[in-house]
Amino acid sequence: MRVTFSPIGTVRTKAETLPRHWSLSEVEGTLEVEARYAVGLRDIKPGQRIVVLFYFHKSPEFDSSFLVQTPPHKDRSFGVFSICSPRRPNPIGLSIVTVGKVVGNTIEVKGLDMLDGTPILDIKPHIEGRQECPSWNGE
Amino acid sequence: MRVTFSPIGTVRTKAETLPRHWSLSEVEGTLEVEARYAVGLRDIKPGQRIVVLFYFHKSPEFDSSFLVQTPPHKDRSFGVFSICSPRRPNPIGLSIVTVGKVVGNTIEVKGLDMLDGTPILDIKPHIEGRQECPSWNGE
Repeated sequence: MRVTFSPIGTVRTKAETLPRHWSLSEVEGTLEVEARYAVGLRDIKPGQRIVVLFYFHKSPEFDSSFLVQTPPHKDRSFGVFSICSPRRPNPIGLSIVTVGKVVGNTIEVKGLDMLDGTPILDIKPHIEGRQECPSWNGE
Repeated sequence: MRVTFSPIGTVRTKAETLPRHWSLSEVEGTLEVEARYAVGLRDIKPGQRIVVLFYFHKSPEFDSSFLVQTPPHKDRSFGVFSICSPRRPNPIGLSIVTVGKVVGNTIEVKGLDMLDGTPILDIKPHIEGRQECPSWNGE
């Protein structure tokens, strides 16, 4: 079975060096979403944290040598599903960034760890628990 | 541009009714990962929370009528990128579940909101801040 997606937009940043992970990042940039999806950004507000799913478009093809990897700054190896390495069976990245301004089909954000030109697959609300779930009915 | 992925495994659960969202769920089941990826599960431990990215395989094709949706139990509509609806431009789901036991290529989990048979795209560590990032060097 194969599943095919079309990116909804692109990450733009002028930063030339990027931190290894969003949790370590102060890098600013924008998420440029295709104009036809702009209405879907309507409820994204400044200050909010959002989840960005993206395609690691520079990753090499996965092979079994990547099942276990030693991250930089670590002295031991980890199974690929316990780390955020871009070398994974399906090279999908997940970053949590903070929203600055939303202008039309563009979201200004802080906390990027993606390269300029990275294809965006999805944007979701950042939910930690049921209180933040839009489907929570208060029970 | 189109991006193609092959699921790494399948969600299995006997639950016939599912909560709307993982944050509201106590449902148990298993993540059955393909045997060739079993080594990559090596560092997933009982009690840990993990992020599961999956394919909403029952979703209708996206069209512009889904750009704004009214979730159940809500009295107003939201832009699609502010809710967790399965009807989204790229139907990728994200759930955070709690690990029970890891046996071979199978992870027992609690907190499912996916249907039995849901294709799994990726499994990641659940990271809230830099302290949990495997690349954090302690600075």
